[in-house]
Order: sequence, then C-alpha cells, then structure tokens
Amino acid sequence: MTYCVGMLIDAGLVMMADTRTNAGIDNISCYRKLHIYDGGDDCFIAIATAGNLSVTQATLSKLAEGVPNPETGEIDTLWTVPSIFKAVQLVGNVLRTTRHETEHGMEAEGVSFGATMLLGGRVGSEPLRLFLIYDAGNAIECHADTPYLQIGEYKYGKPILDRALDVNTPLNEAVKLGLISFDSTMRSNLAVGLPIDMVTVRADPACEPEYFRIDQSNAYFNDLSRQWGEKLREAQAAIPRPPFIKHKAPVIV
Amino acid sequence: MTYCVGMLIDAGLVMMADTRTNAGIDNISCYRKLHIYDGGDDCFIAIATAGNLSVTQATLSKLAEGVPNPETGEIDTLWTVPSIFKAVQLVGNVLRTTRHETEHGMEAEGVSFGATMLLGGRVGSEPLRLFLIYDAGNAIECHADTPYLQIGEYKYGKPILDRALDVNTPLNEAVKLGLISFDSTMRSNLAVGLPIDMVTVRADPACEPEYFRIDQSNAYFNDLSRQWGEKLREAQAAIPRPPFIKHKAPVIV
Repeated sequence: MTYCVGMLIDAGLVMMADTRTNAGIDNISCYRKLHIYDGGDDCFIAIATAGNLSVTQATLSKLAEGVPNPETGEIDTLWTVPSIFKAVQLVGNVLRTTRHETEHGMEAEGVSFGATMLLGGRVGSEPLRLFLIYDAGNAIECHADTPYLQIGEYKYGKPILDRALDVNTPLNEAVKLGLISFDSTMRSNLAVGLPIDMVTVRADPACEPEYFRIDQSNAYFNDLSRQWGEKLREAQAAIPRPPFIKHKAPVIV
Repeated sequence: MTYCVGMLIDAGLVMMADTRTNAGIDNISCYRKLHIYDGGDDCFIAIATAGNLSVTQATLSKLAEGVPNPETGEIDTLWTVPSIFKAVQLVGNVLRTTRHETEHGMEAEGVSFGATMLLGGRVGSEPLRLFLIYDAGNAIECHADTPYLQIGEYKYGKPILDRALDVNTPLNEAVKLGLISFDSTMRSNLAVGLPIDMVTVRADPACEPEYFRIDQSNAYFNDLSRQWGEKLREAQAAIPRPPFIKHKAPVIV
C-alpha cells in the first residue's frame, strides 16, 4: 500500500510519499515512490506513485528511456516537455499503455494492475501546477478550492486536510499538516510506513527545491506524533459526555 | 453509502448506524439501517446493515418470514434462535443465499451486490456479543483487544476509535466517541448522513435497551461537532511548525 499527498498553495508546492510496499502482508519492502526530475531553472517535475509497483516502475523506466512520438518523429522525455500539462499527457499515455501491456493475459491471476500518480512542478516560466493522473491516462488538476490531491490509502489522512488546509496556509504549516495526515494514516494502516520522502518548491522561482526524508529517528516527527495523540485525547476529554446517556445504569427497584 | 459501528465494552453494547442511502449521487434517500429484535428478557438482537440495499432488505424480509430448516423441519427466525452465535449463522446463511440469488444473471450490470452486517445482543442468560457478518456467510466476533467493529465507509472514523476506545471506556464516553467517529465520516463523505440511529444495551441484563435517533436538530450532536472542529484546530495550532522548513523563502542575493 502507499500514501502520497500533494499540496498546491499560494506559498508553493509540497509533495510527500511514504516508502512502504507490500506484496501480501508478509512481503514488505522499502521503495522510493517520490521521483524528481530537476532540470535547474528550466524544469522541475516531481512524480509520486501508488498502485502496482511493476506498472509504476515500468512507466518511469520508459519515460527515462524516452518515448517515440509518432506525430513529430521525436523522442519525448520529461526533460523535453514544453509545459507541465504536456508532461501530464505524456505520463498518462505511458501509464495507460504500460498498465494495458502488464495486465494483458494476466486477468485470471486476480492481481490488481491499477496505478495512479501525482505530478507537480513547473516548466519554464509557468506557475507551479499539480495533477493526479489515472491509469486510464486521464488526469485532474489541483485548484485553490481544494488545494491538495491524494493517492493510495487516502481516507485516514483526509479529515485533517479538509479541516485545516487552505490556499493561504504557510508552507511550513502545510508541511506540518501533511505530516499529521501521514501520522493518522500510519497509525491505522500498517501498509503505510516511514520513511516519508518530501519535496518543497516555493512559488518564487528563484528558490531552489528542498528535499527531506523523514525517518524513524526524526525528532520533529516523533514529537509531532506524540503531541498530536496527546492533544486529541485532551480534545476528546474536554467535550462533555452525552447527557441523554446516564453514566451508571439506572437502579432497578 | 453507509457507516455503522458497534462497540462492545465492559459497560455494555452500543450500535450506531447512519440512514443515508444512494443509488448514484443524484438519488439519495433516508432508510433505517439499524434493525431491532427486542424479545424482552429472553432475547435482544440488533442488526446494522451496509451494502446493496435490495440484498440487505431481502435478507431481513426472509428472516422475518422465517427460514425452513431442512435438518429440523422447523422454521427458523431470529425470535427462536437459542444463542447469538446461532443467530449469526442463520443471518449469514440467508445473506449468502440472498446475495447469490440477487446477483445471479446480473453480473453484467456492473452493480455491486455486496453487503455486510453487524449483529449484536444476547439470547437468554449469555453475555452480550457482537459479530461482523460477511456476505459469504462467515463472521468475525468482537473481542476486548479491539472492542469495536465497523461496516461501510469505516476509514474516516476509525482513527478516533483506535486512539481512544478500550474495553474500560464508560458507556456514555463510548457513545461520545462513536458520535465523533460519525462526525469525522460525515464531514469527508456526503454519502453518510444524519439522522444516526443508536441503541445502547447495558451489561446488566436488568436494564432495558435504550433507543436514540440523532437528527439535525440534536443540540448535543451539533455542539459536539462544533467543539471537535475547534479543538482540532487548537491542537493543530499548538504543535510547532517543522524547524527545517523556513517560514519565509530565503532571500537570494
């Protein structure tokens, strides 16, 4: 399983992905799911992947080798796309064909070949953009009304984002919310686990992207996890109990 | 969609179910999903249902009419079962055959005929028990280590139960936690909605079960929802932001 979230706010872009994969509950591994294409000033693309690992890995390998474009006769890669939208279309096409090839003839195996990806970044002078790409090749774009997208095991960590994240949230607060979202997810689903890979890209194109890996020894994350648990317990304790339920059973006489 | 939770703690049994059903997002209705078989001192059974409404309704109708038992020649109903476990077996058998009959020949329609049920209560002098029944007819029982079971849209409301509920939780605190769990679910999934039907059964068999319907006008629930939102925001605000992310972008000189 996997959990990835991308947040696109006025201050910039944050993308986070866990690193746990499993083929059955007894075959758990650590794989990077956040992939970076950093072309300096001209191009920055981050891709987070969820779903069947053979499909997402083959998709990225094909993109790395380059994909022949029958219309132009050129070889398309993520380094040559003229815009983020073109990158989304390229990745969507490769993901669709890879899924189709992988599952062809293997339907009877009962394996899910589904995969989804988050793709965020900028090419040239365009503003930062963020998309969710489905394995049918289609995609949706993140906009200000709901400034985040999730893939994988998204439900446990969605409530905190729904309640607290908006487009005006500062970048460091957004990172905090993202880590709370991961903490909630990892508590409820063992198939999502540390380390968390993260990249932050500020809206100001003069700023370099920053990379972080949050692992078991990260004091800030461990503190956040402990404090969030304590504060949830305090919040729960501060809410009065329902007056229509008696604490003690009524005495029968 | 649906969300139902059952909690089996030392103080007793709590079962809660929402009432929203939908056939597509533009066809939303209100149906009772918590069904009570209250036979006074001898028998109390509560069933909460999730999944395909035609399957769960047909299952309950068959149970109401009685099911011929080929081994005994008798007609089995929920009023005649000698134990909660026998009730679980009876409901599981009827649910499995109903699902099979309903989907037979309709696989091509692409409709899901899946359904699950929570069944809790006691028969005679046995202690309270709680089960989750799958539509294959099998079931799992709730035990003290994880003193709750959920069906339907369970993920949004699971973290608060994982963090706060244990077998020693008082009955009115468990009801509060259940309502927080519903509040989180309803905020993130419009397919789960008020009113919430609820029954509480104390461990002391001398106490009568109590029934509640929490609707839009319930002042306690509205207060709980508002306070929980405020306290989550306070909790979030009280946690420091990650020190490795600067609030302002570094100045490039």
